[in-house]
Amino acid sequence: MRIGVLGTGGVGRSIALGLTAQGHEATIGTRNVEALMARTEPDAMGNEPFGGWNEVNPQISVGTFAEAAAHGELVVNATNGMGSLEALRAAGKENLDGKVLIDISNPLDFSGGMPPPLFVSNTDSLGEQIQREFPEARVVKTLNTVASNLMVEPSLVADGDHTVLMSGDDQAAKAQVGEILRSFGWRHIVDLGDITTARGAEMYVALWVRLWQSLGTPILNVKVVQPES
Amino acid sequence: MRIGVLGTGGVGRSIALGLTAQGHEATIGTRNVEALMARTEPDAMGNEPFGGWNEVNPQISVGTFAEAAAHGELVVNATNGMGSLEALRAAGKENLDGKVLIDISNPLDFSGGMPPPLFVSNTDSLGEQIQREFPEARVVKTLNTVASNLMVEPSLVADGDHTVLMSGDDQAAKAQVGEILRSFGWRHIVDLGDITTARGAEMYVALWVRLWQSLGTPILNVKVVQPES
Repeated sequence: MRIGVLGTGGVGRSIALGLTAQGHEATIGTRNVEALMARTEPDAMGNEPFGGWNEVNPQISVGTFAEAAAHGELVVNATNGMGSLEALRAAGKENLDGKVLIDISNPLDFSGGMPPPLFVSNTDSLGEQIQREFPEARVVKTLNTVASNLMVEPSLVADGDHTVLMSGDDQAAKAQVGEILRSFGWRHIVDLGDITTARGAEMYVALWVRLWQSLGTPILNVKVVQPES
Repeated sequence: MRIGVLGTGGVGRSIALGLTAQGHEATIGTRNVEALMARTEPDAMGNEPFGGWNEVNPQISVGTFAEAAAHGELVVNATNGMGSLEALRAAGKENLDGKVLIDISNPLDFSGGMPPPLFVSNTDSLGEQIQREFPEARVVKTLNTVASNLMVEPSLVADGDHTVLMSGDDQAAKAQVGEILRSFGWRHIVDLGDITTARGAEMYVALWVRLWQSLGTPILNVKVVQPES
């Protein structure tokens, strides 16, 4: 499938690689391609400059947010949460309408350092904000609860025996996203419900960052257990 | 050990029973003992009237918040989050100072129905509010992430192979609470760090209520997994 991945950071790169490894054709979208390719320093999160990364991963093409979204039969929002709505506006409603939009972003405000608070929570979520602004996109919130490498390779932890969450209003969209998740190796997928349940998945991230600090690694996840588990 | 348990709902009852089963001597505290004993209807959460419950569990004594806190060498806040600070004020600073105070409460605002938002989050937590108002109490936030019966019987789920969290500023207090948790059967205890990390444990509850709604049961928990798990 042709997939547009918005965001050139660790999440976008990891998702694009994971998707191409599964035979999909991925285009990564960015605000300004020229500026992206001209960078010679690591980004704020310590990722190597995109140009060098893309040289060793030439199977992934690069374009503007709009070009990547137009390319995709399915679109992934892998941008920083603070810039997600702006990136999606740049991608263009016309390039999102009717498509499954996987939203991996988190509403984390890093302006005050670690650990970041959420800039929306409790009575709203970034997933809902995106769904409201793009009512014709079929938003599925997922994968925002794990580190980027775990997203596409859950077997890195506990032999893959842990949980990924999913929220969204469109059952068919969630079924399609479930297939992609299973192709990455996810076996335990919990459908939380409609897009308002993204509040739960996003607020969990406040615990996740503290587990990271306490355990000393972001390579962690949770397995949801019930009596019959 | 003598333990004062503030709160007469499902959490207070479950904790008091769990503690007495471990040989502790528990006194449950309430605002008004006479009013509590006069009730003949189930409470807002569907718990049977306290009097009848206490008749079949006479090993647990009942007193005012102040009497229960004074009785305890250790105190447990098992009150509804919206009333926790008021209950602790009624218990009295003089009955809390220097003592380990296990805080199980959640800052859930049920006034708008389910699922409840948190009335404090992100940049503060109920655990911190309690620690700030009672600086001489040795607050340990724990057990707020599971249903009341699981708190004292983790083996009800997945043979007890799942995680309980702990936050607090006082290492010795956390060590003591860890012993109590292990006596209940908890084997995987994650110390998140100081009391500010209670933000993570409390915000997780926004996910927990949605897992409950999605899975159809509150008898659930998460197991934190890492590569070496």
